Amino acid sequence: MPNTQSSLRLLFPQWQGGNNPPYFFGSRMLSWLAPPAQGVVEEVCVPEPGHAQLANEDGIVGRRAIVEQLLDAQDKITRNQPETIVTLGGDCLVSLAPFAWLVEKYGDKLGVLWIDSHPDVMTPEQFPHAHAHVLGALMGNGDAELTQVVRKPLSPGKALIAGIHSPLDVEKQFISERGIATLSPSELRQNPQAIDEWIARERIEYLAIHLDLDVLDPALFRAVLFARPGRGVHDFGDVAEGKLTIAEVVNLINQAAAQAKPVGLTVAEHLPWDTLNLKNMLEALPLLS
Amino acid sequence: MPNTQSSLRLLFPQWQGGNNPPYFFGSRMLSWLAPPAQGVVEEVCVPEPGHAQLANEDGIVGRRAIVEQLLDAQDKITRNQPETIVTLGGDCLVSLAPFAWLVEKYGDKLGVLWIDSHPDVMTPEQFPHAHAHVLGALMGNGDAELTQVVRKPLSPGKALIAGIHSPLDVEKQFISERGIATLSPSELRQNPQAIDEWIARERIEYLAIHLDLDVLDPALFRAVLFARPGRGVHDFGDVAEGKLTIAEVVNLINQAAAQAKPVGLTVAEHLPWDTLNLKNMLEALPLLS
Repeated sequence: MPNTQSSLRLLFPQWQGGNNPPYFFGSRMLSWLAPPAQGVVEEVCVPEPGHAQLANEDGIVGRRAIVEQLLDAQDKITRNQPETIVTLGGDCLVSLAPFAWLVEKYGDKLGVLWIDSHPDVMTPEQFPHAHAHVLGALMGNGDAELTQVVRKPLSPGKALIAGIHSPLDVEKQFISERGIATLSPSELRQNPQAIDEWIARERIEYLAIHLDLDVLDPALFRAVLFARPGRGVHDFGDVAEGKLTIAEVVNLINQAAAQAKPVGLTVAEHLPWDTLNLKNMLEALPLLS
Repeated sequence: MPNTQSSLRLLFPQWQGGNNPPYFFGSRMLSWLAPPAQGVVEEVCVPEPGHAQLANEDGIVGRRAIVEQLLDAQDKITRNQPETIVTLGGDCLVSLAPFAWLVEKYGDKLGVLWIDSHPDVMTPEQFPHAHAHVLGALMGNGDAELTQVVRKPLSPGKALIAGIHSPLDVEKQFISERGIATLSPSELRQNPQAIDEWIARERIEYLAIHLDLDVLDPALFRAVLFARPGRGVHDFGDVAEGKLTIAEVVNLINQAAAQAKPVGLTVAEHLPWDTLNLKNMLEALPLLS
């Protein structure tokens, strides 16, 4: 049976959303690591990190670069008119353009499974790094330059945040006011069928899956923010750190994908500290450099 | 000035010497990560790990495969007649053929800087995994099928083991009987000029540098044996674990390379657990697999 579906793989080495240059290499490495693409491959234009520091531009750090990349991603998606999109980030913001496209295309039949320790529903008033704004923006909330690509806002009921724990007060409030479904790591373990119930209750036929790798326990998978070598205990403002295993994440995704057809998948926030350090080391050695 | 030196890069994904299949992927990844080769690139024929367990064959686990690969490496080196060799392993045994070539070529003017938590001087009677035999074999000691490629044994005085600590009794005895120079992590920090003194004392003009990545502190660089995710405290038989930082290793190598011309460099024992786990995860996800 030929695959008549048009699929797009979007390489998106955005690092400005989290203001963390290693996301750039993390994306390159994901592209190298992932199984070969079956369909079209496009790369969003992202300037390689230099020595200059990003500035806070009217509430968002690196705003101009971020917005340019958002529009470039939207343009590349629109030109391809894909039925499915795989996005290899980069920071979490990379999901905004592809998921906005999928919501527009599949409407209320689309559910967004947001696998993340954090809900990513903040606004520039609350936090200047846009990689924490993306799910909110997808619902039409927050900065107008981000929400400009959201032609049809995601209905909050169509989102399930899995792996979340210890949200901040502003996040908790947003989630509760909008009635967004959440599953903490312990709830996922105790009540995995809650995912099927969400899919059935919301009559979800298609799925966009966002996987922020920082949902993984940083003691078990170290290519994430919180596993930065030599980190101090409080280096990351004591925000929630991942508690899931790789097997749990794979099971969760495949369980959901058995109930609704996956049309979007993002892998984001890959920070391969050790690989980058090794790369830099190799470049500093005789006979190799 | 044109580079008239003939250089060989040897890709050597040997995993049988340490009986650890992830060395194979670790070598592939090193090849991807290293700066582009300036000269000839050859890859030693190594069968990809399968499901079969390696057997102990007359004292050495995986003997037949190891000896075949050793002879293949020797053949590829001999055909190229290189002046310098970079070897990207695989396990530590990958240094045997290239370093034997360099000792033969440069004779007593060659020093071997062995950067490792372990001296790798055991024999099949003491330990069945040949990645721990290689420096001993280079001195003509141990299994005859390994030492067959050593036409001119390395004089023990021409070796310096850096980063070593807590050797086993049999290792300690070999080192002391042969008078091999060693520098523990703390000695390296307190007395870095000991390297220059060794080079001057032994009239070393050329250097072969073996870097076993497990000399690095596994809390700071996690792509090594001892940083296997979820490991138990005593999983590795309580042998010495790395104590150096990447910066210390780079300084050590470049300090030595300023005193004697580097003609050999091996990077070995790369075990990128997280990358391999991520690769397997990606292959298990919808839209990617």
